[in-house]
Amino acid sequence: MNSSDKPVLLISEVGPRDGLQSLKSIMPTAAKKAWIEAEAAAGVREIEVGSFVPPKLLPQLADTAELVAHARNIAGLTVAALVPNLIGARNAIAAGAHKISLPLSVSETHSLKNLRRTHEQVLAEVRAIAELVAGLPADQRPHFEAGLATAFGCTLEGAVPEDQVVRLAASLIEAGCAEVGLSDTTGYANPAQIKRLIRLVRAEVGPERLTGVHLHNTRGLGLANALAALEEGITTLDSSLGGIGGCPFAPGASGNIVTEDLVFMLDSMGVSTGIDLKKLLAVREIVQAALPDEELYGFTPQAGLPLGYERGWGLGTATSSSHSSSLP
Amino acid sequence: MNSSDKPVLLISEVGPRDGLQSLKSIMPTAAKKAWIEAEAAAGVREIEVGSFVPPKLLPQLADTAELVAHARNIAGLTVAALVPNLIGARNAIAAGAHKISLPLSVSETHSLKNLRRTHEQVLAEVRAIAELVAGLPADQRPHFEAGLATAFGCTLEGAVPEDQVVRLAASLIEAGCAEVGLSDTTGYANPAQIKRLIRLVRAEVGPERLTGVHLHNTRGLGLANALAALEEGITTLDSSLGGIGGCPFAPGASGNIVTEDLVFMLDSMGVSTGIDLKKLLAVREIVQAALPDEELYGFTPQAGLPLGYERGWGLGTATSSSHSSSLP
Repeated sequence: MNSSDKPVLLISEVGPRDGLQSLKSIMPTAAKKAWIEAEAAAGVREIEVGSFVPPKLLPQLADTAELVAHARNIAGLTVAALVPNLIGARNAIAAGAHKISLPLSVSETHSLKNLRRTHEQVLAEVRAIAELVAGLPADQRPHFEAGLATAFGCTLEGAVPEDQVVRLAASLIEAGCAEVGLSDTTGYANPAQIKRLIRLVRAEVGPERLTGVHLHNTRGLGLANALAALEEGITTLDSSLGGIGGCPFAPGASGNIVTEDLVFMLDSMGVSTGIDLKKLLAVREIVQAALPDEELYGFTPQAGLPLGYERGWGLGTATSSSHSSSLP
Repeated sequence: MNSSDKPVLLISEVGPRDGLQSLKSIMPTAAKKAWIEAEAAAGVREIEVGSFVPPKLLPQLADTAELVAHARNIAGLTVAALVPNLIGARNAIAAGAHKISLPLSVSETHSLKNLRRTHEQVLAEVRAIAELVAGLPADQRPHFEAGLATAFGCTLEGAVPEDQVVRLAASLIEAGCAEVGLSDTTGYANPAQIKRLIRLVRAEVGPERLTGVHLHNTRGLGLANALAALEEGITTLDSSLGGIGGCPFAPGASGNIVTEDLVFMLDSMGVSTGIDLKKLLAVREIVQAALPDEELYGFTPQAGLPLGYERGWGLGTATSSSHSSSLP
């Protein structure tokens, strides 16, 4: 592949945050740094390196500030972090995060259980963060976005009304977020729903205010949903190397989309991600070595790349003559 | 769901053939009958019950004639069988198969290795079968189709030229097949390739001569590829209950698309398959009991259906009032 291609699809690696927070194992800081460096070297241009939550709640992510500071030294990398509230945002900004994301759960039941906050309380927090960000010098302002969690359904409430997703998206933009994202927290989404909800939210807040989705592979539809999002013009997709964070009771199932499988799909379709797939696959060794008790997932890593694989595999470049050299 | 809906997407269950032929275990004939009956009762309208190959080659499928005869008694079920050659076709017709499928591997290397035949030899066989079929009384003629194996790439040849797929599709129709199908035998396909190749082949032979695709989930793209095929107007998709036949070295990976996951995707999108998803999920118990040494796969079966799930989950039917009864 030609690594100088401008990526048309940005993969945001969320393994160091969304993946590691679900594991019992705590990855050493040095290993996290090596992971982040190796993925950046493979061409990944955005990594969510951690979460600014109290270390008591998530000891796995206690080193987030150090990781942000370290990752900022990697040229061309957007360093993202999750922030649950104003205090988290202050810490993220102090550490130097380029991008901060705050989750708001569309299911208020889930919001109360997870963040112990009503929608109104979360929106108040968003307003305070937006004010903080606006008060910073222009070159220190992080990109501030909110993720609409449980946007496609909730394990506590079941179906989530679409008008509520749209209304909260508008409220978040009004409260000062630069952008909203749609999160399939529960793995309930299907491709028709992905397309429909993207259209509805974009019609309300404008297409430039919704460019990314966060999908899970809980029911095996992760990549089909990613394809649907791509077809709607979404330009940022979250995923996790090795599907880290997947539920041990459903191997490979409950976590984020596997970055390697997502990149294989896009790369083989000729959709530029800027990522070198072979280098990306090699990053697994670093992560596996640092998490000896955890299982890494992924279909493509297990099956291997197709014989004679090259980017744009499905673009009709194959001719009778071009493949004959690979005959056994 | 409303089981009286006319299905717009036909799922062709291939587990009893493509699944079982890959296993060491031999499923007892009675269990196969129970499986076929249960799937038909769940609304599956086409099942490939076996293959008319010499029992010495595939002892797992030695009872195919008996299964065809039995399955013919199930009202509304299309009974399909694979036939490798004229002898197999004769036996399939004698047993009463409604549909016979002959594989032709686009990769001639694969064809020689797998069927020990050149393309020309396979086409000669197709002509002989077409003649046999044409000579039957109208009410005894099976639907005769050919599957273009390795259409999206070959583990021996690598990339497979698209013009060769198109040319062979035309040759098969010319030789007397009613229809051709595209098979991703190796799990190399991606959604862009699926769309492109369907268009190219249909442009050559006409859309009514290519209505089905056979996809594998080797690299995790099975359902994304199915979505791409659906978007191109494909109306028949092959899949295997429990992903039976998957490679033990890549759990869930190398076999056919899992029927349960495929039905969940379509059902939640509101695409009618005529299948009752809950009844389908229950069929796993029959199959698992008959194959105690084999692992069944599937993300949806492991994760379970979404809370308050109903067909057309993603069609925007959820309103603020309709879900409140499922609040905890």
